[in-house]
Amino acid sequence: MLVPALRRAATRATNIARPRQLRPHALPGPVPLATRHVPRLALPIPQLRRAFSTSLAKAEQASGAGGSAGSPPPPKRKLPRFRTVLKYSAYIVGSTVFGVFVLTGVIFLHDAFTYNEKHIEGVPVEPLALHPERGGPKNLPIVKVYLSDVEDEEASELRTKPHLVIVGGGWGAMGVLNTLNPGDYHVTVVSPETYTTFTPLLPSAAVGTVQVRSLVEPLRKIVARLRGHVLNAKAVDLVMSERLLEVEIVSPADSKHHLYVPYDKLVIAAGSTSTTHGIQGLENCFQLKTIGDAQRIRQRIIDNFEVAALPTTSEEERKRLLSFVVCGGGPTGIETAAEIYDLCQEDIINYYPKICREYVSIHVIQSRSHILNTYSEAISRYAEDKFNRDGVNLVTNARVGSVHPDKVVYTIKGKDGKTEEHEIPANFVLWSTGIAMSPFVARISSLLPNQVHKKAIEVDAHLRVKGAPLGEVYAIGDASTIETSIVAHLLELVDASDKNKDGKIDFEEWQIMVDQIKKRIPMSEEHLSTVRELFDLYDSDADSSLNLNELAVLLQEIGNKITALPATAQVASQQGKYLGRKLSRVARQRPVLAANDLTTNEGDEFVSGPFRYRHLGSLAYIGNAAVFDLGKYSFMGGLVAMYAWRSVYWSEQVSYRTRALLMIDWIVRGIWGRDLSRL
Amino acid sequence: MLVPALRRAATRATNIARPRQLRPHALPGPVPLATRHVPRLALPIPQLRRAFSTSLAKAEQASGAGGSAGSPPPPKRKLPRFRTVLKYSAYIVGSTVFGVFVLTGVIFLHDAFTYNEKHIEGVPVEPLALHPERGGPKNLPIVKVYLSDVEDEEASELRTKPHLVIVGGGWGAMGVLNTLNPGDYHVTVVSPETYTTFTPLLPSAAVGTVQVRSLVEPLRKIVARLRGHVLNAKAVDLVMSERLLEVEIVSPADSKHHLYVPYDKLVIAAGSTSTTHGIQGLENCFQLKTIGDAQRIRQRIIDNFEVAALPTTSEEERKRLLSFVVCGGGPTGIETAAEIYDLCQEDIINYYPKICREYVSIHVIQSRSHILNTYSEAISRYAEDKFNRDGVNLVTNARVGSVHPDKVVYTIKGKDGKTEEHEIPANFVLWSTGIAMSPFVARISSLLPNQVHKKAIEVDAHLRVKGAPLGEVYAIGDASTIETSIVAHLLELVDASDKNKDGKIDFEEWQIMVDQIKKRIPMSEEHLSTVRELFDLYDSDADSSLNLNELAVLLQEIGNKITALPATAQVASQQGKYLGRKLSRVARQRPVLAANDLTTNEGDEFVSGPFRYRHLGSLAYIGNAAVFDLGKYSFMGGLVAMYAWRSVYWSEQVSYRTRALLMIDWIVRGIWGRDLSRL
Repeated sequence: MLVPALRRAATRATNIARPRQLRPHALPGPVPLATRHVPRLALPIPQLRRAFSTSLAKAEQASGAGGSAGSPPPPKRKLPRFRTVLKYSAYIVGSTVFGVFVLTGVIFLHDAFTYNEKHIEGVPVEPLALHPERGGPKNLPIVKVYLSDVEDEEASELRTKPHLVIVGGGWGAMGVLNTLNPGDYHVTVVSPETYTTFTPLLPSAAVGTVQVRSLVEPLRKIVARLRGHVLNAKAVDLVMSERLLEVEIVSPADSKHHLYVPYDKLVIAAGSTSTTHGIQGLENCFQLKTIGDAQRIRQRIIDNFEVAALPTTSEEERKRLLSFVVCGGGPTGIETAAEIYDLCQEDIINYYPKICREYVSIHVIQSRSHILNTYSEAISRYAEDKFNRDGVNLVTNARVGSVHPDKVVYTIKGKDGKTEEHEIPANFVLWSTGIAMSPFVARISSLLPNQVHKKAIEVDAHLRVKGAPLGEVYAIGDASTIETSIVAHLLELVDASDKNKDGKIDFEEWQIMVDQIKKRIPMSEEHLSTVRELFDLYDSDADSSLNLNELAVLLQEIGNKITALPATAQVASQQGKYLGRKLSRVARQRPVLAANDLTTNEGDEFVSGPFRYRHLGSLAYIGNAAVFDLGKYSFMGGLVAMYAWRSVYWSEQVSYRTRALLMIDWIVRGIWGRDLSRL
Repeated sequence: MLVPALRRAATRATNIARPRQLRPHALPGPVPLATRHVPRLALPIPQLRRAFSTSLAKAEQASGAGGSAGSPPPPKRKLPRFRTVLKYSAYIVGSTVFGVFVLTGVIFLHDAFTYNEKHIEGVPVEPLALHPERGGPKNLPIVKVYLSDVEDEEASELRTKPHLVIVGGGWGAMGVLNTLNPGDYHVTVVSPETYTTFTPLLPSAAVGTVQVRSLVEPLRKIVARLRGHVLNAKAVDLVMSERLLEVEIVSPADSKHHLYVPYDKLVIAAGSTSTTHGIQGLENCFQLKTIGDAQRIRQRIIDNFEVAALPTTSEEERKRLLSFVVCGGGPTGIETAAEIYDLCQEDIINYYPKICREYVSIHVIQSRSHILNTYSEAISRYAEDKFNRDGVNLVTNARVGSVHPDKVVYTIKGKDGKTEEHEIPANFVLWSTGIAMSPFVARISSLLPNQVHKKAIEVDAHLRVKGAPLGEVYAIGDASTIETSIVAHLLELVDASDKNKDGKIDFEEWQIMVDQIKKRIPMSEEHLSTVRELFDLYDSDADSSLNLNELAVLLQEIGNKITALPATAQVASQQGKYLGRKLSRVARQRPVLAANDLTTNEGDEFVSGPFRYRHLGSLAYIGNAAVFDLGKYSFMGGLVAMYAWRSVYWSEQVSYRTRALLMIDWIVRGIWGRDLSRL
């Protein structure tokens, strides 16, 4: 708001003596809307605006009125007087104080009326909610009715809707929850945490640049829009034939016990765990996937400095305590290394003995030849230069062998081809090197015979779990991977395309088949653009048609070219949104589907196309600088990029509350630095 | 700022038609300072002020120009038009947005310049800091030199100053640290926590009304002003003969080991633990003394609601989970009960099944006949009424017998004099019933033969630990209690007052003695005001002089009348400030003391009078209402009292940072409610 007004004032002032044809804004006619309305808000202090524009105008007049060549030479003038500047500042400070004061007053007043003495009595409860039936293969209680299910008419109405159960509370689940239409489903979220976490800022939270509570939003607040339910539990097993999800109650206040949650539609958005690569001693490592991880890392870092600051700590021990090792050169690892560097450089140095800063060493161990290797080469190089300048030790082409409580052992291939073993003494090791299946996801994968992927559940282009009853079980985010094998569909494709049933595919039929393939595996599109060339290329016997063998080779090779989607928040979020929208559409189209003799389970293709991922770019913070990989463009730099990085994350927040809290955190850290308390 | 101005405007407006004699404010003469100066800040927008005051003035003019009785009756006038109000609001919003925008910009700019690439190299380190000498009875390393002691000239200079060691990081320690002069002492703070905690708001933090990080300030930031040191350790023992404090390093990242910290002056401000009253099962209780306690309570409360919200939880179990028991009717217990009530009433109800709210019960078990029994009777009654209205169960005259994981057992005396045993099923029990000695304080007490107090270390009126070498060991806050026994000083007093050495005290000598007593035990003052009457009263043989027996009775009975100071933050803080000022004065007077042939250890009486406590009042929050006991006055009420309560605590903060954070917490909670995430 401020900027246009100032620009306008400045334009007005500079335009004073310019010839008319140079000022298109000043042409007669209606003033553009924005220009007309904004100033009132932007410079609400009329006197100030007057003073400001007058002084500007005077200055301009004096200094040659915008530099038009024909004007008289400028007489000598003083710069805007100090008093004006002072007045200007006083007004700004005054109006801020005043405004904040009024705002606070309003909030306090509101605050005052939150008090009420109403007591709730006589909430109706369904007897089934108090004494659930037992059943299923393990004869466990079945949660058919929830406590609030008959609270009011709306809740009772919802009970009759299909039961949608979402396992997990991360990016994928948020995508679904935020796009679902209220009233379409009876929604239950099963999550061991009571909140959703804004994971990309965990590295910031791990050193206190932002507070952990600024990254979380209670799931109950999020499902409130849908009048949904939250089950604070861990999913452990699935009985697909009876549509029962088995969960374990994880509350520490209670002994463990298991329940069945019945579903009509199940969304598995349970995320992943870190891959171990079979390395010894990973229990000595930190991970950075949850709020708890970030809290533990923050404590450990301060701990290390406290012990290093003791006068009785030996020099060797001090070096070990202040050596921070990050295994993995992806965005999480890099950002954590950068944040630890910031912490030391900006805050630790002011409050701990200076000698501590001198002993700090930060190491990144990367198995590839560059850090941020999924980003463009320019970005990798930029980040590496930045880290080298900061004295962060980058160890590339290295393989971590084992992690001990007091050191990390890794090997690199020497120039002579021999592997050399090195070690870094350390009291903080972060492990962030790719994903593996969580136990629940692994269990589901093992239940289905055609699930062979090692890291996730394979789903089709509609995000339905392959092998599960159609339209009942979906998987999204890190827990899932979209099938890329086209050749597995060979026979169906031939069935659908071989119009003349001669067992061969001529070019016309090939065109039909290509459409079919694109529909089933949309990610193959870019590899199928040259229809004619492909046909000719793989028609090895040049008989103007592809037989099954030729087709198999073709489909196999195209399938191999497809890269699976990365396990990122962006993919999970887009999949969640896609699924939420589709599920709502399925619910609303139920009458139409019935009329067309389609069950809702077959309705996915009817109501929606397959999932298509749109890559919006990758970004990473590298310590008072940031890098963006936007596909064709790369953008990297210091201050501006850092603010852009902040803005992107800011806009992606799930609520205005976390947005406000983040902004406050950044401001507080700007004024007072990071909090160095160990809690 | 706004309030006085608005009040003034309002007063002016309401006074319009009142007769002049009713308006003392409007009498001719100088305008009071506050009234004169405030409006400029409060209404910083000139046009607005003009508009506002014009319309007010018009209204005044119209309605009889300030209400002078002889003026013509007011003609009909329209209320300020809607447009004016709109304009007014737009200005406020505009100026706020503008101000906040500028502020944010400034902060972000500042932020941008926090980045620097400087590297610290070659910080000098004293070899002794790396390899400390060993010594003392246990042959432990002695921390004579700290890592940063030779960092620069100022640090080297400080090394030569007397070593002041402060045990503890609470209110007492803050008092000392904030009043000490920089450069007078080489200061070391020994604390197992790295931060100081604003304890009075812990009940708020326990339910999430404020964040725990808003209540803490790192000790290292606080000692930075004095270029002091922080030793993150637990004091365990003291060798007074060699002036060595034995500490245990408590960092979890390190194995435990012990050190000696040498001191010239030691301040014991180690606080207290909760008293057990010999009750079984206190390990099943929560306490509320530290940040960790507040975090655990918050988790437990949300846990209880999460498990209660499960459809498979039985009704009985649900009632137990949602039964919150507070043992102890003092301020901490009462505030916690009130905050839990607020949480349920304002937030839980919106996001958990409504049935949960119905099952919530809050119980306060108090051993006395009233809650808040140290406050005035009116306040106790007000608080009790408020709690009864809210349905909080107050159990008075009750004695807790034992605490079990699932219930609290207590006894009350029935009407027939028999004790009846009752129990309350509960999954949350808070224990807050008075204090006991922490292990370190108990150890010191056991080292000194004349220390017989059960709950704290006895100190003299100068806060010096009784029995320790004079002027070397001080104790303040909960860890200490000022001696109240006058009779223990009988012989010294007679020595000093019996001028004619006849072994009897005549009235003249008695007057001298009274002065002596007041100097040694200032708390006896109010009981010694009637000098003549006392003399006559206790002169049992009416020989116009007091013999030793008569004196002993007199002094014993006066001593019995003195009540020890309560174990409150207020006392600790005042003692700390007194001590800090005195220690600085002692340091500066060293040449004078030397000239007068007094060692610094005897200088306490020379530079300063004894400690005098000034009670500023007690206050407590009781759930959208607050009570103040200001000695002669009591003040209690809803909104206004609550804001007064907030203001008092706000002004007592140790830093602007925590002030800002608290204000933000209150605003955030006002807009979005409490965060219900369990972390």
